[in-house]
Amino acid sequence: MPSQKVNSKSKKKEEPVILITNDDGVTAPGLRNLVEAVRDLGKIVVVAPDKPQSGMGHAITIGSPLRLHQVTLMDGVEAWSCSGTPVDCVKIAHDKILHRKPDICLSGINHGANHSINVIYSGTMSAAIEASIENIPSIGFSLLNFSLEADFSAARKYARIIVEKVLKAKADKHLCLNVNIPNVSEDLVKGIRTCRQAYAKYEEEFNERNDPAGRKYYWLTGKFVNFDKGKDTDVWALEHNYVSVVPVQFDLTNYELKAKIEQTYKW
Amino acid sequence: MPSQKVNSKSKKKEEPVILITNDDGVTAPGLRNLVEAVRDLGKIVVVAPDKPQSGMGHAITIGSPLRLHQVTLMDGVEAWSCSGTPVDCVKIAHDKILHRKPDICLSGINHGANHSINVIYSGTMSAAIEASIENIPSIGFSLLNFSLEADFSAARKYARIIVEKVLKAKADKHLCLNVNIPNVSEDLVKGIRTCRQAYAKYEEEFNERNDPAGRKYYWLTGKFVNFDKGKDTDVWALEHNYVSVVPVQFDLTNYELKAKIEQTYKW
Repeated sequence: MPSQKVNSKSKKKEEPVILITNDDGVTAPGLRNLVEAVRDLGKIVVVAPDKPQSGMGHAITIGSPLRLHQVTLMDGVEAWSCSGTPVDCVKIAHDKILHRKPDICLSGINHGANHSINVIYSGTMSAAIEASIENIPSIGFSLLNFSLEADFSAARKYARIIVEKVLKAKADKHLCLNVNIPNVSEDLVKGIRTCRQAYAKYEEEFNERNDPAGRKYYWLTGKFVNFDKGKDTDVWALEHNYVSVVPVQFDLTNYELKAKIEQTYKW
Repeated sequence: MPSQKVNSKSKKKEEPVILITNDDGVTAPGLRNLVEAVRDLGKIVVVAPDKPQSGMGHAITIGSPLRLHQVTLMDGVEAWSCSGTPVDCVKIAHDKILHRKPDICLSGINHGANHSINVIYSGTMSAAIEASIENIPSIGFSLLNFSLEADFSAARKYARIIVEKVLKAKADKHLCLNVNIPNVSEDLVKGIRTCRQAYAKYEEEFNERNDPAGRKYYWLTGKFVNFDKGKDTDVWALEHNYVSVVPVQFDLTNYELKAKIEQTYKW
């Protein structure tokens, strides 16, 4: 049962508590790779969904209760599965498992891209954003490869470099980074770029089918279209084999539009 | 079946197509009130979830297909229920029901507040944000009253005022407004304020219970805490009986943090 407190005064030089979650579920290879990449950097506690939760965005569970189960993931790593969304995992980890704020929250490594507009649909990134709302610096990692057999070696290498930097830098409490890793071998990655989110979107085409009773149903499919030709975007960096790092915020106010409305709309 | 095209050249002075959705579900009184508030301003098409979807944030349905059913809501109003999330409703409405972009997308009227950080968890606001991503000006409306028996008269009045203004102003294609209405009678509302999103958050306390078999389960509960003392915020406006209007963006890049990271992190 989730009752062991992380004793924050047990050592002189306290090792950081690193909360790890994802949206592909607690059994996903990407999660295991992230744990392996950073496990000697602090005390790792995994709290991840008990099933895939891709595309869950910032959903929270309010109409039903949550379950938590301690699971065996890897030797020496405390791990829990949660019946909720990625955002639920961050909330319940803090309140019911750690009983304190972790020093950092890592999410991923996601199987598939979360650059540009994907950040808004991504359970991986919403978990990281939730942590940053709660004053926990956070980083979401995504590899541009959907396969369960993907090669995570470049992703592991850069995840470690970035987590070390952030831990060392005494990060801003609202820091949230969206890190995407190109799908190329480690030696082809050119480095890391700090970027802005590209303006890109999906043009939906629902795939219409008939069930055995002749009733229609629809699968969401879509074409990704990048409208942004800037060289300072995450899409550009990834196309040129850089790891992209986009700092993310949870203040959704559009200040430019606010100023325009104040001038032109007489309410 | 969703095949009737909205003929965009049928009249000289084309009336605007107004897509209406929500997250409380197609049967919610708030939705009906929104339709009634604006129904003479254009051709109304309702596409809303077939069940409550509060707290779904920007979730989309990718692991299962969607269903659409035409429903009877009010005389002369085309209405559909969709088995997906609020964001799914906007996507499928565009592709499979309207076969064109609506001129505006309205979401709500939500039963309960969506000011400050609530914008990020809200299915109501995520539907509006999705529309703005798709170049459809959008407005989400929320009344600060959870009750199914809430008095929507002030909300209806101000929803209509704001929709008329936006339709008349030839809105920015990415315009997205988060409108909250205080829970007071119409005569006590002082007017409309354009605001920024207050920095506020929830401090979670999961309510722990035992099921009949003695196993633990957890209900998400939390205390809302406003850390923001600014008088230009939505929370301030609502506390002072103003309708709050926060322009919302989908570019989550934190440009301030980006500049700081570029200066201080040597990747």
